[in-house]
Amino acid sequence: MSSSLSGSVVTDVPGPQSKAAAKHLDAVFDSRAVLLVADYEKSSGNYLVDVDGNRFLDVYAQIASIPVGYNNPALIEAAKSPEMISALVNRPAVGNFPSREWYSILKDGLLRVAPKGMNHIFTAMSGSEANELAYKASFMLYQRRLRGEGTEWTAEELSSCLDNTAPGSPDLAIMSFSNSFHGRGFGSLSTTRSKAVHKIDIPSFNWPRAPFPKLKYPLEEHVEENADEERHCLEEVERIITTWSSRVAAIIVEPIQSEGGDNHASPAFFQGLRDLTKRLGIVMIVDEVQTGFGATGRFWGHEHWNLTSPPDIVTFSKKAQTAGYFFGDRMLVPDKAYRQFSTWIGDPARVILSKAVVGEILDKKLVEQCTRVGEVMYAELAKLALKYPDYIKNLRGKGKGTYLSFDTKDSHALVASIKKLGVNIGTCGVHTVRLRPMLIFEEAHIPVVITALEKAINSQ
Amino acid sequence: MSSSLSGSVVTDVPGPQSKAAAKHLDAVFDSRAVLLVADYEKSSGNYLVDVDGNRFLDVYAQIASIPVGYNNPALIEAAKSPEMISALVNRPAVGNFPSREWYSILKDGLLRVAPKGMNHIFTAMSGSEANELAYKASFMLYQRRLRGEGTEWTAEELSSCLDNTAPGSPDLAIMSFSNSFHGRGFGSLSTTRSKAVHKIDIPSFNWPRAPFPKLKYPLEEHVEENADEERHCLEEVERIITTWSSRVAAIIVEPIQSEGGDNHASPAFFQGLRDLTKRLGIVMIVDEVQTGFGATGRFWGHEHWNLTSPPDIVTFSKKAQTAGYFFGDRMLVPDKAYRQFSTWIGDPARVILSKAVVGEILDKKLVEQCTRVGEVMYAELAKLALKYPDYIKNLRGKGKGTYLSFDTKDSHALVASIKKLGVNIGTCGVHTVRLRPMLIFEEAHIPVVITALEKAINSQ
Repeated sequence: MSSSLSGSVVTDVPGPQSKAAAKHLDAVFDSRAVLLVADYEKSSGNYLVDVDGNRFLDVYAQIASIPVGYNNPALIEAAKSPEMISALVNRPAVGNFPSREWYSILKDGLLRVAPKGMNHIFTAMSGSEANELAYKASFMLYQRRLRGEGTEWTAEELSSCLDNTAPGSPDLAIMSFSNSFHGRGFGSLSTTRSKAVHKIDIPSFNWPRAPFPKLKYPLEEHVEENADEERHCLEEVERIITTWSSRVAAIIVEPIQSEGGDNHASPAFFQGLRDLTKRLGIVMIVDEVQTGFGATGRFWGHEHWNLTSPPDIVTFSKKAQTAGYFFGDRMLVPDKAYRQFSTWIGDPARVILSKAVVGEILDKKLVEQCTRVGEVMYAELAKLALKYPDYIKNLRGKGKGTYLSFDTKDSHALVASIKKLGVNIGTCGVHTVRLRPMLIFEEAHIPVVITALEKAINSQ
Repeated sequence: MSSSLSGSVVTDVPGPQSKAAAKHLDAVFDSRAVLLVADYEKSSGNYLVDVDGNRFLDVYAQIASIPVGYNNPALIEAAKSPEMISALVNRPAVGNFPSREWYSILKDGLLRVAPKGMNHIFTAMSGSEANELAYKASFMLYQRRLRGEGTEWTAEELSSCLDNTAPGSPDLAIMSFSNSFHGRGFGSLSTTRSKAVHKIDIPSFNWPRAPFPKLKYPLEEHVEENADEERHCLEEVERIITTWSSRVAAIIVEPIQSEGGDNHASPAFFQGLRDLTKRLGIVMIVDEVQTGFGATGRFWGHEHWNLTSPPDIVTFSKKAQTAGYFFGDRMLVPDKAYRQFSTWIGDPARVILSKAVVGEILDKKLVEQCTRVGEVMYAELAKLALKYPDYIKNLRGKGKGTYLSFDTKDSHALVASIKKLGVNIGTCGVHTVRLRPMLIFEEAHIPVVITALEKAINSQ
């Protein structure tokens, strides 16, 4: 294997320089979660270099957020463009004073990849914010329909909302699924259900959660069982929505529950959710913060479902290098200006970078590459799973590009061993190892990952 | 008056080009709040140019967020730096993989201007997020003290929090003040009390609000009355905190309530809040999103108070061109890693820009300039107030730099007239005109504003 393909680790991970830098940083900035201190100047493409001179093939990619490689030349060009300089130094209040370029920045970038059926966008700064804005749009739509188009707000609504009480602050809910992750704001965190460490001690809304299907693997051996499980979950979704103590304005769902353990469901399940939300007249929000931008071998994870009608709202962040939500129905634009608003409404500098990411993905056919490379990667992992059934269990992500994962005995120990062998990889859920490479990950990189994984297993 | 100092308006505001561009944009991005479409390439220093060729002396500054002028050369230099290019194209998950430069970016930038008594920072992307992170830090501290240092979470806490119920999701509150604005997330919006349009139809937490002093002007004629009012408000704060249905973990207060109408209070009031929060053992959060970074003639608005001990948390955004919070007590760092966390934890690109803003402010002594220019500006406005008492009422902000405002009959009509005369200015509250110039606003600009204001009054 060529040394330019494999990683190279010359110290412990984290190494002494990383440890010293993290300790230094900790005096001013909490650095207990630092895994290593990076040298981004020396990092390139799929490879992350740290301050100890270690070089990793990076299949974690900044928690699944680097889209097209470190120091990507097209992104550097965008970063140096006069358009970017202006967006950085003349940061506008986009809602009041957009730049003359704002329309084309959107049109030639994010809107090129708008999900089918969606031609509107609202920009934000994080996936968490994007989800919360989607919740707000859903709540405003719900109340708008309830009071009837054109009905003015009552004096009681106007005054009670300032007091945080009904009817101005209505008791409405967003339904999410067990093991979901939708962010860490007070609204998004109320829909996050993956781990206690995110939620404990933080007040939350009394919003419902429904069970997410727990599929059995290999899928082809559990067809009926899994179909039953999904049917049961759909029944629960309907029961919970129709019986919950408050009215449910929307549901939010990830195409693949990522932080919660890489949990998949079938297209039939998601079609069931679409049918149900249509029938009940509530908004279906698809959280594509981690699955969007090509990661599953389609540009959007929900394209795998072939829905009979598009979701109402699709949120994005991470690989987009900016955040926001797409929608199609203009009724999701609140009935008055300034209801969905903030000083900055996202960051045009990051949206310009997003435009370069979109260009790179489309020009280089990276979604197609992800599909192709993912198939080979899955086959190699499947072979290894046969050899080490105790260490590679419930292999999943077949047909979903490189969005692959498996359960193992001790995911943190295994990941630590793999890192020492020059591959930066991540965990999710309780005992899952997830591959989240960049879209420029190629066939040639597969042996590096497989070799490191096998060595690490043998060292456990 | 030199034409380079005054604005120049050649069309209606917004002009035909702005209107056409906004309409075009509206097909993909809600543009009902667009006031004009800007040409940032042609904008410079204190002057904003729009696509119709109109040139405005800008004393609104992108909703009080442009710190040191359009196309500021020092900021352009920072935007072109290799450090910036890398931060843009290699966006790190700062908590896991910070760059080797991260410490110095903070140390040589934001930490140079850390409020007295505060040496820790947590970075964020907006003022709203910064406030919510401050709330989360406060809640975690409250529960940590309640359960006792080192006490592990119970099984019931661990499971109930995933269900959004107590004891894992405790019923804790943040107290805010009437007419406050702290953001639009579900937590920050629950503390925002300025206007119904921000809040109506959005579920909120049952958190309390206390009355904010309503001072009478001129201050020197209402000394006793105002002192009584502030005493009464402080009594109410204590009564509400000690009798509210849930436990209050923190209070949040703006040094000057900005969006809510530029409402001031005296140092004694804020010292009273500091004493009270100390006595009750709850966190005092000062929201300096609009007042911070020199806008009041001190670097931080709370420096006007001469507190006997610093606030617990100070949040910032806007003129910082990034966001976050400062704190001093390490107990505000949660007891475990990953509790205060997100994928990106702010944006190093924006923090690099912030470093350049800090450099510019300190090098050019812009806070001192703001104090000096503000004094002259206040005196000129006071003269005009004597001449037009019906149009300039309750003039306020004396001694607070250029953070000046007054009430008028119809603030929106007056501001529209002023704009047509080449000065871009904003409103707040119900009937208030606020000046929010950049820190590079000079004595020479004052006659431009005063002349336009007088003409506009005469045209009403």
